[in-house]
Amino acid sequence: MKIGLVGFGNTGKAVASVLLKHENFELKWVLRKSSKQENRYVSDILEIDSDNRACVFSLHNNKIEQLLDEHPVDIIIDFSSEKGIYSYGKAAAERQIKIISAVSHYEEREVAYLKKLGKISTVFWSPNITLGVNYLIFAAKVLKSIAPFVDIEIVEEHFKQKHGVSGTAIKIAESLGMKKTKINSVRAGGIVGKHQVIFGFKYQTIRLIHESISREAFGNGAVFVAENLINKEKGFYQYEDIFKPYLTNKI
Amino acid sequence: MKIGLVGFGNTGKAVASVLLKHENFELKWVLRKSSKQENRYVSDILEIDSDNRACVFSLHNNKIEQLLDEHPVDIIIDFSSEKGIYSYGKAAAERQIKIISAVSHYEEREVAYLKKLGKISTVFWSPNITLGVNYLIFAAKVLKSIAPFVDIEIVEEHFKQKHGVSGTAIKIAESLGMKKTKINSVRAGGIVGKHQVIFGFKYQTIRLIHESISREAFGNGAVFVAENLINKEKGFYQYEDIFKPYLTNKI
Amino acid sequence: MKIGLVGFGNTGKAVASVLLKHENFELKWVLRKSSKQENRYVSDILEIDSDNRACVFSLHNNKIEQLLDEHPVDIIIDFSSEKGIYSYGKAAAERQIKIISAVSHYEEREVAYLKKLGKISTVFWSPNITLGVNYLIFAAKVLKSIAPFVDIEIVEEHFKQKHGVSGTAIKIAESLGMKKTKINSVRAGGIVGKHQVIFGFKYQTIRLIHESISREAFGNGAVFVAENLINKEKGFYQYEDIFKPYLTNKI
Amino acid sequence: MKIGLVGFGNTGKAVASVLLKHENFELKWVLRKSSKQENRYVSDILEIDSDNRACVFSLHNNKIEQLLDEHPVDIIIDFSSEKGIYSYGKAAAERQIKIISAVSHYEEREVAYLKKLGKISTVFWSPNITLGVNYLIFAAKVLKSIAPFVDIEIVEEHFKQKHGVSGTAIKIAESLGMKKTKINSVRAGGIVGKHQVIFGFKYQTIRLIHESISREAFGNGAVFVAENLINKEKGFYQYEDIFKPYLTNKI
Repeated sequence: MKIGLVGFGNTGKAVASVLLKHENFELKWVLRKSSKQENRYVSDILEIDSDNRACVFSLHNNKIEQLLDEHPVDIIIDFSSEKGIYSYGKAAAERQIKIISAVSHYEEREVAYLKKLGKISTVFWSPNITLGVNYLIFAAKVLKSIAPFVDIEIVEEHFKQKHGVSGTAIKIAESLGMKKTKINSVRAGGIVGKHQVIFGFKYQTIRLIHESISREAFGNGAVFVAENLINKEKGFYQYEDIFKPYLTNKI
Repeated sequence: MKIGLVGFGNTGKAVASVLLKHENFELKWVLRKSSKQENRYVSDILEIDSDNRACVFSLHNNKIEQLLDEHPVDIIIDFSSEKGIYSYGKAAAERQIKIISAVSHYEEREVAYLKKLGKISTVFWSPNITLGVNYLIFAAKVLKSIAPFVDIEIVEEHFKQKHGVSGTAIKIAESLGMKKTKINSVRAGGIVGKHQVIFGFKYQTIRLIHESISREAFGNGAVFVAENLINKEKGFYQYEDIFKPYLTNKI
Repeated sequence: MKIGLVGFGNTGKAVASVLLKHENFELKWVLRKSSKQENRYVSDILEIDSDNRACVFSLHNNKIEQLLDEHPVDIIIDFSSEKGIYSYGKAAAERQIKIISAVSHYEEREVAYLKKLGKISTVFWSPNITLGVNYLIFAAKVLKSIAPFVDIEIVEEHFKQKHGVSGTAIKIAESLGMKKTKINSVRAGGIVGKHQVIFGFKYQTIRLIHESISREAFGNGAVFVAENLINKEKGFYQYEDIFKPYLTNKI
Repeated sequence: MKIGLVGFGNTGKAVASVLLKHENFELKWVLRKSSKQENRYVSDILEIDSDNRACVFSLHNNKIEQLLDEHPVDIIIDFSSEKGIYSYGKAAAERQIKIISAVSHYEEREVAYLKKLGKISTVFWSPNITLGVNYLIFAAKVLKSIAPFVDIEIVEEHFKQKHGVSGTAIKIAESLGMKKTKINSVRAGGIVGKHQVIFGFKYQTIRLIHESISREAFGNGAVFVAENLINKEKGFYQYEDIFKPYLTNKI
């Protein structure tokens, strides 16, 4: 599968490194806003020993239609920012390129745009594309539906410098219909990221815990989604649509 | 719903205390092997302030058919031992009484017998009837099916005197197709019971943890099963059959 | 060692049950405010199989000097409430009876009174007398002194009904010179009590965790203190005074 | 303080990066066995933006006495291997250079040699120089001495590929006089390193947990030791000698 990557910040780089090492995926290019490192090999920039010849292209200096025609891909993975989708969305969907967006924050307008693109191609969005966090949300919702009156609290832990409540924790809380006041935020040292959902019953406690080790988890999440979109028809998908077949087929 | 309870050991007593305090259930009698405390009110024995007049009956001094006819119940909950089912199973099933067995260890012969009873009434069995442990197994199986190659390990912790590997941990391992050697058993002080399933991905870790606070969790588990069996036709059911509708309806 | 116990609430009863089962201690009497169960054997009230003949006495119907002279003890353990100390303190200290107070909340006036009693007998006070919580505070202070700039946060978890921030968590925070805003309080189901101190360094994290299993931990804490006060001269002691010799002698 | 670093493997590099960023320390040179990258600036190799001009020297091409005389340092930090100490030990000690060895495995012969060097200079050794692990061992020993009969178990978790039981876990077990069979080893995914000591009392549990985030923790550990050796006379020191003053002065 040929992949185009949009966005080349810290997370974009970690995702590129995962793609370069994956045997079922071929990174064809990286598209970024700035013209830094333009036309250099991605493998050189990341100091990864690889024959891959994907280059960095800048949005400033390239016409997207021409790029997509000269360097065709099957899937575009987007780790850029809120407005990134407008730069390639229409051109990609029209060429039946599948779109996987892992952008954290969209306004309603962008979500509506993604859904519109889903009418002509296969479009996926997750604000946190790691498998672990999405599984956590899914498993928590299952338990909440089984035991609607259970007490639930969230504890999230991150490095000292992280400002505000974790967006992922807020997403978990929203999924469970919880107030944000039930989120406890610990800030200490260099903790990469830990999310814990505590379910308190009268005589027993259940805890679902996700711990991040490094940013590459986003790359593996994108790969997991890409593999599960292969046979998906056009439409707008989220993580639960990916999980459902595993439940009905295998459990 | 009228309940008959078979078995009155430590767990049976904890279950009885939960039933006595529950507003949707009426405990009608307790049936036990020995004749200790026979004919005393269960509420008196457990020192629970209640108008409930359920008595303890002994298997030695009562004919089961007569008991079921004179003190009819909707459901029998069984916390006795392996052979307990033979003392009441046929008589109960013939009277369309639902059977919930929470006996930990059955040989194949007993499981076959339960399935046979399931052809004439509604029969349920779980070797650990707590909601938490069964949810843990269910959620772990879901994750295993989503990510079949993830590394899995189990850590179980119990009080110092507990001999051998926890039966619940073995059940979890079997459900996940794991070797028993992947179970780590900690024995220290008075830990009531903790089961942890660790899923190790390259860049993230997920943990599912169940902690028992007290034996009454078994009572609440039996109550949860009883409520979910109300509209179930005759048949042999296990916990997954109880969970399934929550997935298809609500997720 | 002969023990008198002041206070017979839920915790007092748990402490009495630990004392009744301990081979080095002989419970001589329980003194309580109310006259409920007066003159009954403590072992009968607690349904503990024992030859111990300690009775319950009421403060209403007994003169403390007479009680101490007719039923002499070596140590008084106090699990009553704030003003309890005034009912027996002077009479006990004058008879060289050691005093161990485990009362949670004292005003300055009571602490001053305890210190005054410490001039004539051996007097000890801890607002949470469990070994575990005091060790936690001690170990946390050691780490804070080694690494004064480390980030510290506290997470405490208790049953849903518990109001306000845990007093023990506040004590831990004060010991570490932390603001109370660094305490995260989780309230869910029937969690007995868990206190976690998280030390965040840039490249590593240390966690000290105390989990309560049951109220009897207070009894064992009182026993530990009693054993360590045997050879202590008159004076006012706290837990750190008990811990110190273990450091200088054995480490 | 001027520092010479011996050893430039993965951990050595992480340590160098910590030293380059630390304001109280000046890295003067790195000494390694091989001649790879010889004479290059350490800051260039590690891509750290710094004015520091420390170079890599090879043991093959340099005489140690000449190196120490031409590029004098106050402290040598050794992250090389077992035999590394022989290449610089005598020359360094004779010049009153303090030696901090963080080599994991030494035979008795090397430990004896370190002690001998301790007669002419200040020499320190820790097989795991992180502050966290040493604090864990120290705090665990304190608790063991306070409560000698408590049940203790160790759980260590590491990445799937790690062979054998963690050396740090074995060190912890030895410090507590425990059998190695009490160590539970979890191997899953990419867990960096987690060591947990569980103390089980009858009615309460205490857990001491150390989690590694990255290798740089070794660098910070070396820095902590260096700062605490400044005023230490000649002699052979270990971590406990560093911790002791914090106890006697501040607690």
